[in-house]
Amino acid sequence: MSPVTPTSHFHQKSILITGGLGFIGSNLAISLISQGAKVTLIDSLIPEYGGNWFNIEPVQDHVIINISDVRDEHSMRYLVQGKDYLFNLAGQTSHMDSMQDPYTDLEINCRAQLSILEACRKYNPAIKIVFASTRQIYGKPDYLPVDEHHLLRPVDVNGINKMAGEWYHILYNNVYGIRACALRLTNTYGPRMRVKDARQTFLGIWLRLLVQGKPFEVWGGEQLRDFSYVDDTVNAMLLAATNDAANGQVFNVGGDRTIPLQDLAQLMIDLHGGGSFTVHDFPADRKRIDIGDYYASDEQLRTCLGWQPQVSLETGLARSLHYYQEHLAHYL
Amino acid sequence: MSPVTPTSHFHQKSILITGGLGFIGSNLAISLISQGAKVTLIDSLIPEYGGNWFNIEPVQDHVIINISDVRDEHSMRYLVQGKDYLFNLAGQTSHMDSMQDPYTDLEINCRAQLSILEACRKYNPAIKIVFASTRQIYGKPDYLPVDEHHLLRPVDVNGINKMAGEWYHILYNNVYGIRACALRLTNTYGPRMRVKDARQTFLGIWLRLLVQGKPFEVWGGEQLRDFSYVDDTVNAMLLAATNDAANGQVFNVGGDRTIPLQDLAQLMIDLHGGGSFTVHDFPADRKRIDIGDYYASDEQLRTCLGWQPQVSLETGLARSLHYYQEHLAHYL
Repeated sequence: MSPVTPTSHFHQKSILITGGLGFIGSNLAISLISQGAKVTLIDSLIPEYGGNWFNIEPVQDHVIINISDVRDEHSMRYLVQGKDYLFNLAGQTSHMDSMQDPYTDLEINCRAQLSILEACRKYNPAIKIVFASTRQIYGKPDYLPVDEHHLLRPVDVNGINKMAGEWYHILYNNVYGIRACALRLTNTYGPRMRVKDARQTFLGIWLRLLVQGKPFEVWGGEQLRDFSYVDDTVNAMLLAATNDAANGQVFNVGGDRTIPLQDLAQLMIDLHGGGSFTVHDFPADRKRIDIGDYYASDEQLRTCLGWQPQVSLETGLARSLHYYQEHLAHYL
Repeated sequence: MSPVTPTSHFHQKSILITGGLGFIGSNLAISLISQGAKVTLIDSLIPEYGGNWFNIEPVQDHVIINISDVRDEHSMRYLVQGKDYLFNLAGQTSHMDSMQDPYTDLEINCRAQLSILEACRKYNPAIKIVFASTRQIYGKPDYLPVDEHHLLRPVDVNGINKMAGEWYHILYNNVYGIRACALRLTNTYGPRMRVKDARQTFLGIWLRLLVQGKPFEVWGGEQLRDFSYVDDTVNAMLLAATNDAANGQVFNVGGDRTIPLQDLAQLMIDLHGGGSFTVHDFPADRKRIDIGDYYASDEQLRTCLGWQPQVSLETGLARSLHYYQEHLAHYL
């Protein structure tokens, strides 16, 4: 753990993070604890999702952990009380799951979001909320880079429900004055991401196979994407939390730069000093919802909140590879 | 009843209408029956919603009526089977209700829509679906007239959930090939609208009070709006149903022309030959979500489906006044 910074805005503040044992939630928790915050993590530990006890290993004695599901209205109602900030990161994120079981996705990404917001409205209207949204709600871009004026045309049930979940937050800000904003995250990567399978992102499984010395598969390969290193994503969330100019706004979070997937694969191999991948056509069911190229304009985040990415793709990937070389056993 | 037109596209076709005893559903049913269709109406007859037995009085011996709720997955699963067309009009439409009880709005406007679509996917993938969406999902316009490229920024829970419900339809079209499209209706008016209160539209209560010889209230007054006479709305739905160019598309349905609310009030008084209204400022809670002027560009509906409004505002209002002068007792 880094030493506490008593001058931080978050010093002695009470923070609630849903999805707190997950990839981004745990990195956020580690940063906030290093800034002297009092942090409570909520996680359902559903095995298919991102929660992992090892994620908070560096801070486990400095954090309150509450295992519950955001669908549990009663625990949420209690836990939002007395908090200064809510980082609302819990969600169902799998495309496939949302298509096979749209109702569970709806319960988590819509209904639970409403009940969290209702709890804040009734029991803690002074709280500030940062909601983790996703670039997936844009669907197939009309133009690049995609800015926040781009139409939302989600290509799966998950995207539709996340779109609604995002808008509940903006609505509660606008109508009830519960300060809230949303960050539309691009592909986020880094230590503590799920690498067991491709449920969170394909990059997880690439990393794992590379570290395990096995070839990995690239689907397509020409698609352009941007990637945000998790520390930069966390930084965007902290800036959004502390700046009231963010209230009622949505912000794209983009990456350090844009890269075709095939080049990304090669870059990872170069950084790892070995490895191999094969390139495959999309299976028919994915092809139908393939969005082609995507990369974000994060101009608004830079202008309004003074954010900029600090970690280059090379550095971020190298750190990620290093993390999983050391800790892979905890993620299998 | 008008005589059956055996040359109609809908002759002998099996049609299902959710919200079939409601305002638009019943007008649609009357038109389809006059074209020789076999029509089944689903309605929950929730007292606060639009269903009214008297609405189908002209066709009651020619229609199958099934009282059930779109949230009832089992009845929906059975009823979609064997149908050629589904006009999916059932919904919670009240702004106030959606804010006071967001969960019920979610169940009807999101979850039930998913279960209807799942039922079609599993038991009748050849069905064609026309979904009744609403201009309310646009929120406060950035520009006028509002076309389908305008961002969606709903200002209440109802608008957010309708936005999601609309997108489920487009998604099931795109991913599963369940042919579906959505019409974003503007203020629709005409015979069979709910006039008991302002739950469906303010125009209902204006009409009722005018017919009852009482003054009505105009909130604001300067706002520009467009109004679609229900026969024109029904016509748009029939065109969308029969034309596969509509599949996967959303279309604005606009009005005959644009008018400030205050002028509309005066026009109604002129047509009625008497009456009065008072002008009031918006109450604070409505002011916060006031969208200002709205009128639609329905160019896409005209170009793609060859639609155009046939009934002028004057004619439509006169017909509406006439209807409620004759039948008001059935709507109180």
